[in-house]
Amino acid sequence: MIYVGVVGYGYWGPNIVRIFNNGDNAEVAMVCDKRCEALHRVHQLYPHMKTTRDFREVVTSPQIDAVAVVTPLWTHFEIAKAALENGKHVFVEKPFTSTAAEAEELINLAEQKNLTIMVDHTFLFAGAVKKIRQLIDDGTLGSLYYYDSTRVNLGLFQHDANVIWDLAPHDLSIMDYLIRDKPLGVVATAEKHLNGMEDVAFLTFYFLNNIIAHVNVNWLSPVKVRTTLIGGEKRMVVWNDLEADEKVRVYDKGAEKTINTEGIYEMLLVKYRMGDIWAPQVEQKEPLKNELDYFVDCVVHNRNSINDGHAGLRVVRMLEAANQSVKRRGAFVDL
Amino acid sequence: MIYVGVVGYGYWGPNIVRIFNNGDNAEVAMVCDKRCEALHRVHQLYPHMKTTRDFREVVTSPQIDAVAVVTPLWTHFEIAKAALENGKHVFVEKPFTSTAAEAEELINLAEQKNLTIMVDHTFLFAGAVKKIRQLIDDGTLGSLYYYDSTRVNLGLFQHDANVIWDLAPHDLSIMDYLIRDKPLGVVATAEKHLNGMEDVAFLTFYFLNNIIAHVNVNWLSPVKVRTTLIGGEKRMVVWNDLEADEKVRVYDKGAEKTINTEGIYEMLLVKYRMGDIWAPQVEQKEPLKNELDYFVDCVVHNRNSINDGHAGLRVVRMLEAANQSVKRRGAFVDL
Amino acid sequence: MIYVGVVGYGYWGPNIVRIFNNGDNAEVAMVCDKRCEALHRVHQLYPHMKTTRDFREVVTSPQIDAVAVVTPLWTHFEIAKAALENGKHVFVEKPFTSTAAEAEELINLAEQKNLTIMVDHTFLFAGAVKKIRQLIDDGTLGSLYYYDSTRVNLGLFQHDANVIWDLAPHDLSIMDYLIRDKPLGVVATAEKHLNGMEDVAFLTFYFLNNIIAHVNVNWLSPVKVRTTLIGGEKRMVVWNDLEADEKVRVYDKGAEKTINTEGIYEMLLVKYRMGDIWAPQVEQKEPLKNELDYFVDCVVHNRNSINDGHAGLRVVRMLEAANQSVKRRGAFVDL
Amino acid sequence: MIYVGVVGYGYWGPNIVRIFNNGDNAEVAMVCDKRCEALHRVHQLYPHMKTTRDFREVVTSPQIDAVAVVTPLWTHFEIAKAALENGKHVFVEKPFTSTAAEAEELINLAEQKNLTIMVDHTFLFAGAVKKIRQLIDDGTLGSLYYYDSTRVNLGLFQHDANVIWDLAPHDLSIMDYLIRDKPLGVVATAEKHLNGMEDVAFLTFYFLNNIIAHVNVNWLSPVKVRTTLIGGEKRMVVWNDLEADEKVRVYDKGAEKTINTEGIYEMLLVKYRMGDIWAPQVEQKEPLKNELDYFVDCVVHNRNSINDGHAGLRVVRMLEAANQSVKRRGAFVDL
Repeated sequence: MIYVGVVGYGYWGPNIVRIFNNGDNAEVAMVCDKRCEALHRVHQLYPHMKTTRDFREVVTSPQIDAVAVVTPLWTHFEIAKAALENGKHVFVEKPFTSTAAEAEELINLAEQKNLTIMVDHTFLFAGAVKKIRQLIDDGTLGSLYYYDSTRVNLGLFQHDANVIWDLAPHDLSIMDYLIRDKPLGVVATAEKHLNGMEDVAFLTFYFLNNIIAHVNVNWLSPVKVRTTLIGGEKRMVVWNDLEADEKVRVYDKGAEKTINTEGIYEMLLVKYRMGDIWAPQVEQKEPLKNELDYFVDCVVHNRNSINDGHAGLRVVRMLEAANQSVKRRGAFVDL
Repeated sequence: MIYVGVVGYGYWGPNIVRIFNNGDNAEVAMVCDKRCEALHRVHQLYPHMKTTRDFREVVTSPQIDAVAVVTPLWTHFEIAKAALENGKHVFVEKPFTSTAAEAEELINLAEQKNLTIMVDHTFLFAGAVKKIRQLIDDGTLGSLYYYDSTRVNLGLFQHDANVIWDLAPHDLSIMDYLIRDKPLGVVATAEKHLNGMEDVAFLTFYFLNNIIAHVNVNWLSPVKVRTTLIGGEKRMVVWNDLEADEKVRVYDKGAEKTINTEGIYEMLLVKYRMGDIWAPQVEQKEPLKNELDYFVDCVVHNRNSINDGHAGLRVVRMLEAANQSVKRRGAFVDL
Repeated sequence: MIYVGVVGYGYWGPNIVRIFNNGDNAEVAMVCDKRCEALHRVHQLYPHMKTTRDFREVVTSPQIDAVAVVTPLWTHFEIAKAALENGKHVFVEKPFTSTAAEAEELINLAEQKNLTIMVDHTFLFAGAVKKIRQLIDDGTLGSLYYYDSTRVNLGLFQHDANVIWDLAPHDLSIMDYLIRDKPLGVVATAEKHLNGMEDVAFLTFYFLNNIIAHVNVNWLSPVKVRTTLIGGEKRMVVWNDLEADEKVRVYDKGAEKTINTEGIYEMLLVKYRMGDIWAPQVEQKEPLKNELDYFVDCVVHNRNSINDGHAGLRVVRMLEAANQSVKRRGAFVDL
Repeated sequence: MIYVGVVGYGYWGPNIVRIFNNGDNAEVAMVCDKRCEALHRVHQLYPHMKTTRDFREVVTSPQIDAVAVVTPLWTHFEIAKAALENGKHVFVEKPFTSTAAEAEELINLAEQKNLTIMVDHTFLFAGAVKKIRQLIDDGTLGSLYYYDSTRVNLGLFQHDANVIWDLAPHDLSIMDYLIRDKPLGVVATAEKHLNGMEDVAFLTFYFLNNIIAHVNVNWLSPVKVRTTLIGGEKRMVVWNDLEADEKVRVYDKGAEKTINTEGIYEMLLVKYRMGDIWAPQVEQKEPLKNELDYFVDCVVHNRNSINDGHAGLRVVRMLEAANQSVKRRGAFVDL
C-alpha cells in the first residue's frame, strides 16, 4: 500500500484520483489544486479527502510516498523536482517536461535518490497497442515499412502548447514503443490560424532500414480521427481507436512484385497474399488502471518501467526537434 | 463532329474510346497500341474500328482532328509533339509530361499553331469537386485554413514513376483548381521499400495567408482511402470519394476562441457553430464523359479550358519540386 | 427539494443514485438492495448514504417523498403499490409492470391519492428522439409511412423476461411517443435457442392510414445495432444511436411516381426530391438527467407527464399482445 | 459451343448478352425485344447482332440451343414454355414464374424433353454466398440459430410485382441454398403506400430445430442496405454485400450460459468465446459470369444444377405463401 498525493484536478486529474481511490494497493492521501472550485468538486465526490491549494504541502507531507503531477506542462519540472527532492516517487503527465534539459535534470535527480519516475504514456497500456506490439514481436508483421498515424479533431486548444505538443506525444510514445530502432531525424511542417500557435501539423520521422513514420495532428478537423496504419513486409495493421469492437485489424496483404504485361506498359502489380483480414480481440481494461497498477508495482519493487524518465525524455527530444523543423520550414533535424 | 485518334489502349484508353464512341459529337477514327493483344481487344468490342501499331499513322491521318495520348508518361511528349506538329489538337493523360521544360515546349507549339491542349485532370469534372468549388466560391466555407488529402491503397506499382507521380497528380490538380493562390513551395518526404521507387510519400505545400496543403500518398496501404479534409473559417468539408451517396459532407463547425477557466489552466475551447452537418447531392454523371464533352466543345469553339497546358504545367512543376524535396530529405523547394 | 428513496442498486440503480445525488433539486435519502455487496458498493461511493435491505423501510420512511423502483420486473408491482399506499410518488423502471392489470391497479391507486407515477422511458428524453419528434410535429417528414427499428446485440440474457420484454420496451415507448395514432394490433414471431426464453423476435404493428411499424430484437447478434428508419411522405430519417456525431440523418428523398419506358417493361421509378442529406445537431445532455429533473418538476408542481402510468400501460399492453402473437405463431392480436 | 437467344433487353438482359458475347463457350445468336429503342441499343454495341421483336422467332430458330428469358415476370411462363416445346434449354430470370402451377408445368415439360431449366438465382454464384455455404458445411458456424436479412433501398417500383416478389427472391434463394431444412411455414406482414402494391414487407420463416429466418424488404428506405446476419451455435456471420473488401465477417462469438449474481438479480450473461473476428477473402469473379458458365456446362453435359426448376419452384412457393400471409395479416401459412 502506497500513499499518493495528486497535484492538479483539472481535465485528467480526476481519473487519477478515481482509479487510485478505487484500487486496493494505493490510497490518495491528498489532492492539490490552485482553484477552489476544483477542490469543491473533490469534496462533492470524496467528502473525506484531504485537499490543499499549495503543492508544497503535498511534496513535503510525510504520509505521502508518491506524487502524481497532472498540471500544465510548464509546471511539471518545478513540481516534479520538488517532489523528488523531498524523496517522493513521481508520476508525471505527458509530455514529461518542456525541455530535454529539464527532463535530464529530473532523471539524474531520481537516480541519485533511487526514486521512480514514470511518465504517463497511457497508450502503452491500451489493449490495442499491447496487441500490435505482440504482432511485431512474434514476427506476424515481418520487418516494418512505415507507421502512419492520424490524430485529428476539433479542439482542444491549449494556450501553453501547440498541436504538436498537445496531440503528438501519444503517437510518439507509441512509435517509440513499437519501433525498435530510434529515429534518425524529423521533418515537420505546420501552420497557425487561430491563437498564434500551430493548430495543423505534419511530422515525418526517418529511421534506419527505410522505415518511415508520419504523424498528422490537427485541432481544426471537423471529424475526429484516431487511425494508425502500420505496414509490414508480411502483414499490415490498421488500428482505429474509435471502433468499439474491432480496434485492431490485421491484413494478410502485401505487395509482391509480379511482372504483368497486360496494358500498354509493364507494371509491377500487387498480389494479395492469402488475403484474410482478422480483428484479434484486445484487452478491454482501462489503460490508465493498468498503468497506475504498474506504477505502484514499480515503486514497491523498485523496478524499471517501460515508460520511465528516459522514455519521457526521448519523446520530449522528438517534440523539440519537430518544433525546430517547423520553424525552419521542414528542414531535417537530427535526433 | 470531330474525329479522334486514340493512342494507347492499356488501363485508361478503353474508357476514352468507349465514351467517344457512345457520344454524338465525336467519333473514334483510329486506335493505336504497340501490342497486338490490345488491338485484339479493340476488335472484339468494335469490329469496325480502324487500328494501328504505329502512332505516326494516327498523328498524320488527314481524317483525324484530335489525338488522345493515353500512353505511359515518358512517351507523352514525343507523341503529343508529333500530333501538334501535324495540326492535331491533343488530349493528354495526366501527368502532362515528365518535365516542365517539355510542357512549356508543347504549350508554345500549340499556341503558335492555335491548337488546343487539354490535360486529363478528370477529377475537375467530378460532381464532388464541382460542388466543393462552388462552396468555396459562394463563401460557404469562408477563407481557407488547410487542405489535407489521403490517397492510399495497395498498388498499383508503376515502373516509370514513383507514388508521387502516380497518385499525387489527382490531388495537385484538384488543389490547383480549388485554392486560388498558388503554392509558395513544397516540403516532401518519402521512402522506398520494394522496387527502387518511393512507395510512401507525404507532401506539404505552403501558401500565402497561412493556407497549408498536405497530400498523403501510399502504394502500401492495406486499405483504400480517398478522403480529403478542407478546413475553412466558416465551415469545413470532408470529401470521401469512396462513399456511394454522401461523398461530400459540409460541417457547420469551426473554432471560436472562448476563454474557459474550468480545469487547472485556462484553455481556448472550441465552440461549435450551429453544428448541423449536411451532404449536398452531387452530380452523378461520369466525370470523364463530362471532360471529353468539354474537350470537344473547347476544340470546336476554340475556347480556353480550365485544364489546359498551363494547368498541366503547374502540376508537373509541383511534382518536380516534390521529387527534389524528397531527394534533399524535406528541404523546402520554392515554386 | 424532494427526498428520494432508491430501491434496487443493480445495473441501472447506480445511475439513478448518481444523478439525484449530483442534482440540486432532489436528494437521495436512502438506498435499498437485498444484497450486501450492492450496499457495500453504495458505501464506497457515498460513505454518508443511509442504506437498507428491506424496501418496506424505504416506502414507510417519513423523510421520503418519492420512491424509485429499479428492481426486476416481477417486483415492480409489489414495491410500487406499497410506495403509493404510503403516499409516495413513484418512478418505475420500464417495463412498468408484468401485466396490464397490475398497471391499471397502480394507476387507479395513484389517482385516488393524487400521486405521480412516472415510468422510466428514458429515450423520450434523448436529444435524438426529441429532434425526430420535432421533425414530425413541424411537418418536415410529412405523413408517416413506416417505422422500422433494429435493436440487436449479444446478450444480456435475463431470466425473468424474454428478448421482447427486455429490449422492445425502448422501441415501443419511442413508437408510442412519435406515432400519434395508436396501433390496431400486432403480429409477432420469435424463437428460443438457449435458456427457454425467446432470444430472437420480430414485431409488426399495424396502424390506421397504412402506417406500419416493425421492431427487430435479438440477443444473439454478433454485432450491436441500434438503428431506426422512419419513412415519411416528404422526408425520411435514419437514427443510428451508436454514432457519436450524426445520430439523426434527415434524407430529403422520397418516391414519386414517374412512368419510365426504358427497359422492356414500364416501371415506376423513384425520383429524388432535391436529395440533400443533413444531420441536425441533437442535444447531448444525458437523457436520464433530463428525465429525473422532469420527474422532480412533475412531482413538485403536480403536473402530468408524457411518460406517466398510462404510457407505461400502453407499452405493457403491446408487450402482452406480442407475447400472445408469438405463442400463436404470428396470429394478429388486437390492441 | 452453344448458341443462345436472349429474350428481353431491358435492365438485366444487356448483362446476359455481354457475358455470353465475351465468353468462349457460348455465342449470342439473336436478341429479342418488343421495343425498337432497345434493339437500337443492341446494334450500337453489337452491329453484327441479329435481332427481332417477336420472341417466337427466337424459340423456333434452328441455330439456337438455349433461350434466356429476361422479361417481366408475367411473361416468363409463356416464353419459357414455347422455348421448351421447341426443344430449347431455358435460363429464366428470377422469380421463376408467377405461380407454382406454372413452375410445375415447365418442370414436367423439361423432364419429358430432357431439357435443362436454370433459374437465375445469381447470388448462389457470388463469392460471399459460396464462402458462407462453406462455413456452414465445414461446421465452422455449428448448428444454425437464425438467418436475418435486410434488403432495402429507394425504388425500384415495378408495376407487376410487389416488394416481396421484387426483392425477396434473392434472400429466399440464398436461404434455400444455405439452410438444409426446408421451411415449415411463413408469417408475413406488409403495407402499401404508393402504387397499390406492398412496398414495405417483413417475412418470417419457421424451420425445424428452432431455426428462424427473417427477411426485411423495403422500397421506401432512404438508405441502401444489403446485410444478412447468420447466427450459429459456434460462430456468427455478418454479410454486408455493400462492403468492397470485407463482405463476410465471421465472429467467433456466441452465448454461453454463466450465472452471474452481480446486479440485484441473477442473469445469464454472455461469455465471448475467444472473440476474434475475421474476414475471409471471397472470390471476386462476377457472379453472373460464374452462373452462365455453369449453365453452359450443365447444358452441354446434361447435368443437374443447384438452381434448377425445382429450386425456382421452392422460391415461388415461398413467395405465394408470403403473399397469402400478408393478405391474412400475418396468419401462419404452411409450406
